[in-house]
Amino acid sequence: MLRWDEPPEGPVLVLLDQTRLPAEEVELVCTDAPALVEAIRALAVRGAPLLGIAGAYGVALAAVRGFDVDDAARALAGARPTAVNLAVGVRRAQAAYRAVLSGGGDQKQAAGAALAAARALHREDAEASARMAEHGLALLDELLPGGGHRILTHCNTGSLVSGGEGTAFAVALAAHRAGQLRRLWVDETRPLLQGARLTAYEAARHGMAYTLLTDNAAGSLFAAGEVDAVLIGADRIAADGSVANKVGSYPLAVLARYHHVPFIVVAPVTTVDPDTPDGASIEVEQRASHEVTEVTAPQVPVAGAEAGGGIPVAPLGTQAYNPAFDVTPPELVTAIVTEVGAVSPVTAEALAELCDRSRQVTI
Amino acid sequence: MLRWDEPPEGPVLVLLDQTRLPAEEVELVCTDAPALVEAIRALAVRGAPLLGIAGAYGVALAAVRGFDVDDAARALAGARPTAVNLAVGVRRAQAAYRAVLSGGGDQKQAAGAALAAARALHREDAEASARMAEHGLALLDELLPGGGHRILTHCNTGSLVSGGEGTAFAVALAAHRAGQLRRLWVDETRPLLQGARLTAYEAARHGMAYTLLTDNAAGSLFAAGEVDAVLIGADRIAADGSVANKVGSYPLAVLARYHHVPFIVVAPVTTVDPDTPDGASIEVEQRASHEVTEVTAPQVPVAGAEAGGGIPVAPLGTQAYNPAFDVTPPELVTAIVTEVGAVSPVTAEALAELCDRSRQVTI
Repeated sequence: MLRWDEPPEGPVLVLLDQTRLPAEEVELVCTDAPALVEAIRALAVRGAPLLGIAGAYGVALAAVRGFDVDDAARALAGARPTAVNLAVGVRRAQAAYRAVLSGGGDQKQAAGAALAAARALHREDAEASARMAEHGLALLDELLPGGGHRILTHCNTGSLVSGGEGTAFAVALAAHRAGQLRRLWVDETRPLLQGARLTAYEAARHGMAYTLLTDNAAGSLFAAGEVDAVLIGADRIAADGSVANKVGSYPLAVLARYHHVPFIVVAPVTTVDPDTPDGASIEVEQRASHEVTEVTAPQVPVAGAEAGGGIPVAPLGTQAYNPAFDVTPPELVTAIVTEVGAVSPVTAEALAELCDRSRQVTI
Repeated sequence: MLRWDEPPEGPVLVLLDQTRLPAEEVELVCTDAPALVEAIRALAVRGAPLLGIAGAYGVALAAVRGFDVDDAARALAGARPTAVNLAVGVRRAQAAYRAVLSGGGDQKQAAGAALAAARALHREDAEASARMAEHGLALLDELLPGGGHRILTHCNTGSLVSGGEGTAFAVALAAHRAGQLRRLWVDETRPLLQGARLTAYEAARHGMAYTLLTDNAAGSLFAAGEVDAVLIGADRIAADGSVANKVGSYPLAVLARYHHVPFIVVAPVTTVDPDTPDGASIEVEQRASHEVTEVTAPQVPVAGAEAGGGIPVAPLGTQAYNPAFDVTPPELVTAIVTEVGAVSPVTAEALAELCDRSRQVTI
């Protein structure tokens, strides 16, 4: 969903504009860091891992085109201040650039090093996706022998947020490729409809058998025995295994438990935050009411738009409770799948051991 | 939300046009039965009990204005064929009209009888609402001593669907008037957003402390201990106490059970269908995909509207699983509150006894 390209006019970073999906597939071509900063701010490119990769390429773009690399790095890292991965990606390319210069290399060699760093990050992320898909599929085969999986997912966890094929979505895609996916149930994921807009788009592109549903219709599917497993991503995993993810994940975990259906979290090891001891320590971001009281569909011009730029669906002045994510306690999580393997049951000890294993692999 | 009026130009039925809510409060004035048929078809007036009352007034309107009453009754009863209450209300006014004529009365007296029948139905429904509110509030006081209730509700169950103040909403309103309502949590109720559009509108009109949320955010509220009781209506209650209601009710019942929160169903006794033995016997209506794949907001003119007349939010060709309601088994229902009293625990025997009591009261 993002690629480095080198046409005769000079190198560019090409992005799929996510704000136009699913109505249109429009590519944004960034020729310099300010254009990329603009694209990041407009959410044309989004999702933690993908932002990190975009940031690293942005630094490389500035270096290759001879702009001030430190200026570009500062602007890129600050484009969305809360996105940790973005700053991490930017710093990695910037460090590679500086290391060459301070080692006596010239500007061109330093730019090459920045680009190599961006490419390495991109490759590592794709590789982690592939490993998660592998471990996830193995787990599904173990939990649900016989195949023909009917998988319910929430929000968007595919290639639109990743340098590879994503997290939970990558597992479903691997099942699809192995001929083991009978149905992907796609929660629309209110309020921002990432399931309807983005996951349905990715599933359609891959020719997967998918069906969209309102988030509140999942209960009927469970009751009818139509869900074999729930697969979701994670925004943060506490040391005790509590999982913060898009709002609506926790109700699915409760339903899955009530119906004895496995609830599986797929995320890179970096999502585990040893400094957050438990679920109660995770601060839940409360977002603006207008995300709920108005419906936005950027691809359609509307008349009479209100403050949030959307179409009002509630009385003027209505306040909304709008947490960005919720927290699922470890006792409701059947397994956490990472690129270095899965833990099940989910305990603080098993997670700590997994993180140790990950560090050994990295070294 | 509906009233008989007699201006100098002759009697009329005045309706609040629900398709314009919450953006505008527009009254529709029906001077004859065809205008009312049109309003019913356009969903300007909706909700089972209110449709019955409207149908009865429609027959009275035809009679008082000297139109053919049988023609009017036929057209009204068929305006929405699946709405049983509509036909029942129409027949009641028509029977009163015919009884006077066959008893030797004149056309004017017969018209008066039709109007009296419509008014009686209206009054009985309002009375039933008041009784449900009373029994419901008493139950809340018993289950949650100390007041300060934080009530979660789903869909729209207030005066917009009733001759009175509704079912579940009427209980919340009674709690509000008694100074016992701390917060009404309003599920937006996808896909048609009756919570956001209609319940929020009613709550705002009554000055209740209400907060809107996406259906999938309810889990976070339960987890935070912010819900003291769930109050919902019912479309049909099977003889065993299984409750069919708007999709999204069942997940709330599972969440409520997991969090030890009372889950209370409020509905008139006529909702109990002794001919439906259990939940599995309830046929669930599957509705069109476009209700999920497009978002409609009738009050806002949009460009680029698709087949369903709404704004597309999913890729073209996406199929949706879109059940209109779901079924909650009796073991998850704390109590069923009706106008003749509450049953708790919910068992086939207790429900049968309640229905018997109701018949005795009617006689």
